[in-house]
This record gives sequence, C-alpha cells and structure tokens, in this order.
Amino acid sequence: MNFLKLSDRDFGETASTDKPKRSSEFSERKLAPADFSGIYSNDLLPASGGEEMTRGFLQELVGILLGFICKSNQRSSKVLDFHHPHQLKEGLEGFSLDLPVQPETLEQLLVDCRDTLKYGVSTGHPRFFNQLSSGLDVIGVAGEWLTSTANTNMFTYEVSPVFLLIEEALLKKMRSIVGWADDEGDGLFCPGGTISNLYSILLARYHFYPEVKTRGMGALPRLAMFTSEHSHYSIKKSAAVLGIGTENVVVVKLQIPYNTKNYYPMCRIFLFSFVFVFCFIFRACSVTWNPHKMMGVPLQCSAILVKKRGLLQECNKLGAQYLFQTDKPYDVSYDTGDKSIQCGRHVDVFKLWLMWKAKGSDGFGSQVNKCLENAEYLYDQLQKRTEFELVFKNKPEHSNVCFWYIPPSLRSLPPGPDRDRRLHQVAPRIKGRMMEKGSVLIGYQPLGTKVNFFRCVFSNPATQQEDIDFLLDEICQLGADL
Amino acid sequence: MNFLKLSDRDFGETASTDKPKRSSEFSERKLAPADFSGIYSNDLLPASGGEEMTRGFLQELVGILLGFICKSNQRSSKVLDFHHPHQLKEGLEGFSLDLPVQPETLEQLLVDCRDTLKYGVSTGHPRFFNQLSSGLDVIGVAGEWLTSTANTNMFTYEVSPVFLLIEEALLKKMRSIVGWADDEGDGLFCPGGTISNLYSILLARYHFYPEVKTRGMGALPRLAMFTSEHSHYSIKKSAAVLGIGTENVVVVKLQIPYNTKNYYPMCRIFLFSFVFVFCFIFRACSVTWNPHKMMGVPLQCSAILVKKRGLLQECNKLGAQYLFQTDKPYDVSYDTGDKSIQCGRHVDVFKLWLMWKAKGSDGFGSQVNKCLENAEYLYDQLQKRTEFELVFKNKPEHSNVCFWYIPPSLRSLPPGPDRDRRLHQVAPRIKGRMMEKGSVLIGYQPLGTKVNFFRCVFSNPATQQEDIDFLLDEICQLGADL
Repeated sequence: MNFLKLSDRDFGETASTDKPKRSSEFSERKLAPADFSGIYSNDLLPASGGEEMTRGFLQELVGILLGFICKSNQRSSKVLDFHHPHQLKEGLEGFSLDLPVQPETLEQLLVDCRDTLKYGVSTGHPRFFNQLSSGLDVIGVAGEWLTSTANTNMFTYEVSPVFLLIEEALLKKMRSIVGWADDEGDGLFCPGGTISNLYSILLARYHFYPEVKTRGMGALPRLAMFTSEHSHYSIKKSAAVLGIGTENVVVVKLQIPYNTKNYYPMCRIFLFSFVFVFCFIFRACSVTWNPHKMMGVPLQCSAILVKKRGLLQECNKLGAQYLFQTDKPYDVSYDTGDKSIQCGRHVDVFKLWLMWKAKGSDGFGSQVNKCLENAEYLYDQLQKRTEFELVFKNKPEHSNVCFWYIPPSLRSLPPGPDRDRRLHQVAPRIKGRMMEKGSVLIGYQPLGTKVNFFRCVFSNPATQQEDIDFLLDEICQLGADL
Repeated sequence: MNFLKLSDRDFGETASTDKPKRSSEFSERKLAPADFSGIYSNDLLPASGGEEMTRGFLQELVGILLGFICKSNQRSSKVLDFHHPHQLKEGLEGFSLDLPVQPETLEQLLVDCRDTLKYGVSTGHPRFFNQLSSGLDVIGVAGEWLTSTANTNMFTYEVSPVFLLIEEALLKKMRSIVGWADDEGDGLFCPGGTISNLYSILLARYHFYPEVKTRGMGALPRLAMFTSEHSHYSIKKSAAVLGIGTENVVVVKLQIPYNTKNYYPMCRIFLFSFVFVFCFIFRACSVTWNPHKMMGVPLQCSAILVKKRGLLQECNKLGAQYLFQTDKPYDVSYDTGDKSIQCGRHVDVFKLWLMWKAKGSDGFGSQVNKCLENAEYLYDQLQKRTEFELVFKNKPEHSNVCFWYIPPSLRSLPPGPDRDRRLHQVAPRIKGRMMEKGSVLIGYQPLGTKVNFFRCVFSNPATQQEDIDFLLDEICQLGADL
C-alpha cells in the first residue's frame, strides 16, 4: 500500500499520542502499515481533499479483509477463537465494545476491525459444518462490496434502476426453472426465508379473503393452515404474526417422493433449496427460494416467487404519495416498494446475479452436486466406522447427515433409557470442547424421541473429503473419555 | 495493482478469445488493468493455489469501487446517468442482464461491475436530495465490507459472538439515550423501519392479548389502533399484515410540541429520527430508531427498542430445537434468533458501531446539526427568491423543506383550480428533465389538497450551501419555459 511512505510519519510508539488500545497484530505483519494514528473520520471524504486519505484507509481495510479471506481457507487456521460473552465484554486484550462520546482514530478502528474478525467465526472455513449457510464465495463477497458501496434502496426505479432490472431478470429466470410460464408471475427478494414464507401465507390469505386487508381477521371465518410435520418452524411463526394463531396450524404427515438420480443436475438445487408451502411445487401459488443456502450466496438472499401477477401489489399496496407517484417520467411498474411489506428494501440481488454470471447455471449445478457427494461420502464413512451410529439408516436424500458418536463407555450398554440419557449429553460436551479448541464446528440437536445427535450439513464448496475424515477423527478424539 | 505485470500477459484485443462485451471504460484508465480475460471464478479460492488470484481480483474490484466513491463526491460528476427500463434491457453498450448457462470470465464480471455503478445512482453525491437516506459514509462502507466478508447470521452466539455483543452494547446505549433504565429493556435490529414498526404493534398486541399467539385474532375482541394523521404508512401496512385491518386504524389529529432550540445537540438526532408509536417517547413501550436515516448509516440499519425485557422472547419464541438448544456450552440468552420473526438475521450492527467509534456521539450530533442548518439555509433562500413559494410558511422544524417552483407563465395567474392544475404538472416535468440531465435529484409529491411540490430532505453530510444554491438555480433553468 503506497498511500503513506514509512518515512513520512513517525511510527515510534512513544511518539504517538493516539496509540491504539491493541496493536500486537500489526507487529505480526511483514510491512508496517500506514500511520492512521492521528487521522480521524473527519479527514475522509466528503472532507475537502479527503480523497487520498479515503483510498488509503479503505485499501488498508481491504488488506485486513483479504488476510481474513485467505486465512479462512487455510485448514491450519482455527474455525473460531471462542470466548464466552463475559470474556469479550471484559475488554479482552483491549478490545472494547464501548461507544465513545469523542471520536477514535482510524488506526484504532482498523485494530477494532481486526479484532472483530479475530474473535468471530470463519463461516467459510472448510471445516465449518455448523449451518446450511456456510462457505465464503469470493464473487458473492465482491457483489456485496459493490452493493454496499452503491448504498441504495429497492423501493423505486429512480434510485435503483439497475438493481430492479437485475431483480426482474433473476425472478423471471427462477420462475422459468420452477416451470411457470414466462410472462406471468411476480416475486420479490425478502430479508430471509422466514419472511419469504410469511409473504406466501399473507398472499394465500389475501387471495382467498381479500377483505382481510381492510377489515382484518375479525371479518373472516376461522382459518386453518395445513402443513407437513417436516415443515420449517417459520410456518408456525408466520401464523402467530399474521394473527392466524399457532393452534390453527394443522400438522399432517406428508412424504414427498423424490429420487435425486432422476433429475438433471440443475434441477437438484432447485428441488432442494425450496421450502414447499401448502402443496407441491408444480401446484403451488408461491415458492420460497433461498439462494443463501445451497447455492452459497452470502447472507441474506431469499426470494418469494408468486404465480399470479398483480397479487403482491394488490395485497400490500397502500400508495404512499411521497414515494409512489403515478406521474413520474418513467414506467412506474418498476417501483416495487409498494408490493413489499417493508417499504425500504435492501439490495440482495446483485451478488446472486454476479455469481450466476460467474458460474453459470451449470456451475451452480456442479457446486450442489459436490455437496451431495460429500454427504454420501460421510454416510459411507459412518457405516464403516464402529464409533458412530446413523440416526436415519437410508442414504441421504439431501446434504444432511445425522449421526451419534458412541463413546467407549457407552458401546457395551444395551439400548434403553439409561443409555439414551447418557448419550444425550455426549454431543453437547463434544461441541463445547470443539468450540474451545476451534478446530471444527458442527451442530447438534434432539428430534422427537431421538436424543442429541450431530447434524452435518454440506453446502460449503471449500469442504473436501479430507475435512470429513478430520471431522470424524476429531469427534473421536474429543469424546474418547466420555 | 501489482498482481499481474503487463508483460505477463497479452493484452492485444485480437488475441483475446474471451473479450468482454464492453471494454470502453477500461481504455479510459491511465494504467491497463491486470488481465482476467482467461480467468474464471473456479480459479479463485477455495481452489487450490487460488489465493493470489483472489487477492488480485478483489483488489481490482476495490479500484473500481474507490473510483466510484471518489467520483460520487465530485460535483462535476453526474448524480445519475438515466436510462429507461427498456433501454437498459436492450443491452446498452453490451451491458447484459442475462443469466448464462456457462460461466463468464472475471474480466467480464469487472466490466459488469463498472456498468452497474455507471447506470446506477450516486446516492452519496452532494446534490442527491431525493431521499432521507443519502450520503455515503466511508466508515459505514468499511463496516459493510467487513460485515459481508464475515458473512454470518445473528441467530446464535456460536456463529456471531462479536456481532451479538455489539448489538447488545448498541441497544443498551440507545435505550439509555431514550431515557429508559439501564438494566431493563430489550431490542433487535430489523430489516428496515417498517418491520421495526410491525414489531412494535406485534408486541403491543401480544402484551394486551397474549392468547393471540396460539389462538389467533379470532379469539380476541375487535382491535383498533390509534395513530397520528402524520404517522408513517407502515402503521397501516402493519395493520394489514397482522390481521388487524386498515379500517381499524383510527387516525387522530396530533401535534407534537417541540422546539429544536431547547435540546442539547445530541438529543436533536434522537428526537427526530424516531418514529413514534402509540404515544410519546417517554411513555412508549417500544421505539423504532432508524440510524440509516438522519445518522447516515448505510442501508439497512433500523432498531426496535423495547422497554419490557422478555416481551420479545415471549411473543416470538417457538423454540426450534435444531437452532436453539438449551444445553449449549455458553449463556444461551445471547441466542437472539427466537426473539425475532425472521429466524436468520442479517448483521446490520457493525457499521453503526464502527461509525459510532469513528464519530463519537458528539460527531453524530454535529452531523445532524449541519443538516438542520442546511434546511434553514434553503428556507431563507426560498423566502428571498420570487420564483419559489413555500408549502409551509413556518421555519423548518426538521430537515424537510417543501416548496413550489412557479414558472414565469404561472406567476401572474390568480390562485384557483386552473393555476393548481397547471402547477401540479410543473414538478414532475422538471424532475423528468433533471433525471435526463443528471445534474441533481430531488423528490416531489402532492399532499392532501396541495398539488405537486418539491420536497427537499437533508441528511447528506456532503451537501454544502453551494449545492443548495445550485439546486434552486437548476430548477429555475429547467423550468423556465413551462
């Protein structure tokens, strides 16, 4: 970074009056950084003459971010450097969460940025198996950096022309993949899959009972919703929010028959990243699609696709005159703000669009297939190793594999309440040790009568078979004395 | 950028087999860029050996972003380069929205990034007056770049330790500014002010009728909401979503008596960036606070503050076992996901925290005062100039100033329906010309019986008095023949 030459400023620690609270990380770098110890945010743009300083500061930050991205991809690095809340709140090594009255220097801010990443979790690490949202797609990150630099709002075409057209192109493509006719339909990108599901139910209610918008639920008969026992809890959450009530969600046994082998690779993604609402996809009125899950798009990126054009607008429109004038000098059907329940809306589409350009549909297909292959590999390993038991005996139909680790002391116990009680404590204890060590991260949960088991979810393109071997070996090592 | 030397690769246009569809912008640069014409996203991390290429690509992108940031701050640059939807969709100068089956090169992606910014709007430009969300805070952008690189989710402490503690610190500080006791209260950052307001009403309903969660609105008496005639339309929107019904929102005349001169500067922000829900702030049960408005934080950044601790959790909790285990090896009260209606939640707190460190509370106060001073300056100019009429005669109580431009042909007309009809068309026509020219951007709207007027909102720290003079001169010039 050429912004300030070393000779331009005094780097002596004693000479600095604004020494950052923590600078040990800087000394680890091969080159000393530019000196931001006497510089404040007021010296940056839009301050007159602030251009050079702005470039220098952001370049320095980007150096930190690139370091983090590269480190996240190194297997030798920790997945996380765990600290309990009270430890971080006590000001670990000078890292302070406090909000000051007076400004701090840019040097202190850079130190804070480093610390924030250091004490966080590398969700892109090849050994991060904790969530379906994992991986760190470089193109996706690039898309987010651009999005936040453009800093605009999806509510009107006049402030978001390109992003609204990108959204239109994406929604059209996604609807065509779902199998809906080209020129029909609608949709929106929403802040997460749960909100997308909430939209689905909101639209269904409005479709059958449009008077609900003005007159409320009091004017309607008692409504019930039918949903699969395997459906996401967001369905019940939506029922609570929308005033339907969780008791009126009727859970039904539903088995969706599918076989991954019968589909063209591209279809696999889309079958599996959907949340089914009310009925099968080809008969659904709306579909929630979360590209921030299997497709590896950075959080947040979720869409609600709607079959019937106009429904979103009718259901949500209130026509606020300060935003949605009808006498604007362009086609105001691109002002999507009144279709949404949010008014202002974050730009979540650009990163997906850029990734689609970068990978092509084929690339997304290969990426998902790799995850499914990893799931099969784990399944095979679990069958071979006596320390583990599968929770579900069938081959994985998706990228989830659920299993118990059986520590030596439990291997000879007969099945029953005593063994279950002890087995229930195994996964949380191993998880605790795992977090302390920081070598790998995986989730656990109970399910109905099944006691705590590990749930491995594959969506991280960085994960290789060696990482799966490592995961199993690590669990054995951490749980050997349990 | 030193990633690839010019001599390393052939830059001849005829030699490249993957020539980007549009490269005119590259030729404008003083230095030729590194050659990404034969490079694909598969060559980046997590690909083995992809580190150097990843650094090179992201550095190249950052060069584009820095160029945009600097250009946004130049008064000589356009605020926007307007094109109608059909023009952009026709593939202007090779810019294509299409989603390919096969991957495109990194060079093409960089061209797409440039084009996306070129055809977008510079919301940080000193002459962007279009929305309350304007300005481009460099520290805020830095915060967003880090946030997207960390790519995690606010639902559990195990994946977001630092960000959840930052959220806690911010909410505590914000509650203390609101005047609520230190150790009480709760809150969440939400995807926008409208969703925060929806939370407010959701919580109020649950507080009075907790059975609504399980039994729905059908088990409740008919509910009505009372709101100011000046309240945001999100109140009605929430009534529609929650099943209360827009007809049951009773609009009441409400005048909030305040005088900006009586408050300490810090208080001004906070008085004015609030949306009042149900009653005055010191008696409110919850407060929506949008730092992405007057405080200039990049979109999205909105918080709901709640007075009663536990209410959010009780109202929204469903206890999904796959996420919110109670036997985790840390204090699970930091797993905030079940307090929210979203499940997964984007990290919106880091940029605000970093900006607070950078400016201090005092810096935020000065920034807002500058905007209020700009509003007074515009008000004074409008009083002096005969081409303009104020919509409201009083001094601005906030950063909004509303006014009509009266073109020469209307100046001698008596007030009445004919003048109103013609005046109503003035602002849209000037706005259209303004967008075509790209020199400045301001919104307009009608209000009740008042015909279309310009509404100038100050929140952009880049705006100076010379920009306000420019705005008025430009309106006069663009409307002289109307």
